[in-house]
Amino acid sequence: MISSFIPPHRILMGPGPSDVSQRVLDALARPTIGHLDPMFVELMDEIKGLLQYAFQTENALTLPISAPGSAGMEACFVNLISPGDKVIVAQNGVFGGRMKENVERCGATAIMVEDNWGEAVNVDKVALAFEQNPDANTLAFVHAETSTGALSDAQALCALASENNALSIVDAVTSLGGVALKVDEWGADAVYSGTQKCLSCVPGISPVTFSHRAVDHIQNRKTRVQSWFLDMQLVMGYWGANTKRAYHHTAPVNNLYALHESLLMLQNEGLEQAHLRHKRNHEALVTGLEAMGLSMAVAADVRLPQLNAVNIPEGVDDAAVRARLLNEFDLEIGAGLGALAGKTWRIGLMGESSCEKNVETCLSALKTVLA
Amino acid sequence: MISSFIPPHRILMGPGPSDVSQRVLDALARPTIGHLDPMFVELMDEIKGLLQYAFQTENALTLPISAPGSAGMEACFVNLISPGDKVIVAQNGVFGGRMKENVERCGATAIMVEDNWGEAVNVDKVALAFEQNPDANTLAFVHAETSTGALSDAQALCALASENNALSIVDAVTSLGGVALKVDEWGADAVYSGTQKCLSCVPGISPVTFSHRAVDHIQNRKTRVQSWFLDMQLVMGYWGANTKRAYHHTAPVNNLYALHESLLMLQNEGLEQAHLRHKRNHEALVTGLEAMGLSMAVAADVRLPQLNAVNIPEGVDDAAVRARLLNEFDLEIGAGLGALAGKTWRIGLMGESSCEKNVETCLSALKTVLA
Repeated sequence: MISSFIPPHRILMGPGPSDVSQRVLDALARPTIGHLDPMFVELMDEIKGLLQYAFQTENALTLPISAPGSAGMEACFVNLISPGDKVIVAQNGVFGGRMKENVERCGATAIMVEDNWGEAVNVDKVALAFEQNPDANTLAFVHAETSTGALSDAQALCALASENNALSIVDAVTSLGGVALKVDEWGADAVYSGTQKCLSCVPGISPVTFSHRAVDHIQNRKTRVQSWFLDMQLVMGYWGANTKRAYHHTAPVNNLYALHESLLMLQNEGLEQAHLRHKRNHEALVTGLEAMGLSMAVAADVRLPQLNAVNIPEGVDDAAVRARLLNEFDLEIGAGLGALAGKTWRIGLMGESSCEKNVETCLSALKTVLA
Repeated sequence: MISSFIPPHRILMGPGPSDVSQRVLDALARPTIGHLDPMFVELMDEIKGLLQYAFQTENALTLPISAPGSAGMEACFVNLISPGDKVIVAQNGVFGGRMKENVERCGATAIMVEDNWGEAVNVDKVALAFEQNPDANTLAFVHAETSTGALSDAQALCALASENNALSIVDAVTSLGGVALKVDEWGADAVYSGTQKCLSCVPGISPVTFSHRAVDHIQNRKTRVQSWFLDMQLVMGYWGANTKRAYHHTAPVNNLYALHESLLMLQNEGLEQAHLRHKRNHEALVTGLEAMGLSMAVAADVRLPQLNAVNIPEGVDDAAVRARLLNEFDLEIGAGLGALAGKTWRIGLMGESSCEKNVETCLSALKTVLA
């Protein structure tokens, strides 16, 4: 006999979802209204403005895709890439590999520039790839690799793309709200993120933004976008500046209430304050971990404050430790992913989860379990 | 200055979203847990079982796609259709046209069988299309056309596909939970729906189910599925029967709490009881509308009980009437879509919205506004 599902109260310190505040959950549960209701259209406009602030952009085509970050990624690729294109993809973790999958499924060629997992993307190697492939028209890379905890120099990489007359596609799933991300200043062309990381909203929505250059490129495509659901020319009819909104699909109304609230909280705190908070709690966590004799998997200068990869000590049973943290302390930390499975833990300090109390709870619980 | 969004309390009698019960909203707002949490994995198993009941199927590949119904549609097409395929598409409204878009974006050819909007799909014309196109390997049609309010004979159409050794793709977005839909008994191969219609859950998720025949077809594809996000071979790794769930994308955790609750409510009421309730309230609405001198746009034998298309009387200002209903009565009814814009209203009696009180409210409000 199935009964209503009552989830436990977890402390979410994995790679996302992060802790969702009661304020955002309350917004989520407000009464559903129609997706073409004039009140909802006002909400959409506010969300657009709040996203522009979060992304630090004035891009008109800034909106939340009605699906998770991996659909946001796909939205960027299927709209910008056409069959036969050559795309330079920098890979330093799991999500660069997913970009390659996207490029190939668009009928294009991926020129892979690989770095060790846990290191930042090497800008010089990308520059060399452009020299060797002058016909490459797009550069794709991950700003903050969720699988490893490494931060790459998005500003330099976007500049490099621009110098080579290429568009840039930036994975900002884990970076948005946690570290600086200046879409306009850096000249990024297509950027996607997720709601369940440093925005501390419920999972399921992917904020995206496209530059004017990207929009021109989309409008001059010779072939149709292979996805109907993600075709920006159609999505624009609903999210665009027209006074008359054309029905495309039914927007995830309640999720957008929640996103609005979480973006409002970010704006109230201020981006710079949010970044400083992430940095402060990260430093406290690292100090505590190192005091316990644990070591960080990523070099200090490229460590993500919101996602801390820790080397699992020799002889420690990865799964058993995570299971004890979950069962005895209601504390979720992340396993390693891909090549790092079994080698690292990923401790998230994202959004609401980035607070002193969580740092203390995590250090104390780990001490008990590793004793 | 942006503040928290407090939506009005609307009565949702449009083509979806429908009224969401407080019970489902409460479930939605429970604390977020991780998408790989063992407790969440148990929830996923229960959702699968509840969806199998709703779809009347034992299909192992039955799951909620993490995006709206139009992504569920796309999931069916991109997985089953390969470049060069010939697909018979029956169109009798907006959503058949969207199917054509999907077929073409898969690099396949759509053989269109068109019927007048507001009529059911003509089974004989589809049979003729199979005779004329013996190489067609798929039939796609809409069970309950949300744009017109017409019900087609899904059982006969699935049988026809099967006799012609073709797979069937069935749009059940508006039918699931409102009228009979017997996936196994009818031999439907790929069926997609939405949460925001007769399930009365929040919008944003698309339940789908694939037959064994469809799964075999997917596993024997010669080309990769063009969408990474919707590739069922990858999605199966997370939703499949394996004890070890492979990470694919972050599931929309809270939406799945809500879906679980709404499916539980459907199971508790029972499918047949739910269908009878939809029928009873539909009949009361039609009686009331006809007593007011209004006429239905769809013939009685193919009318959807959950979506009632009403002819807008000559000289009546469509938009003004809908605006008054919304502003004075907090009542949303739907406009006509596509070819029927300005000609019909669509009055939804879906899921929770299908109740005596709503029928009375709607009739009374319409009387006032049309007086």
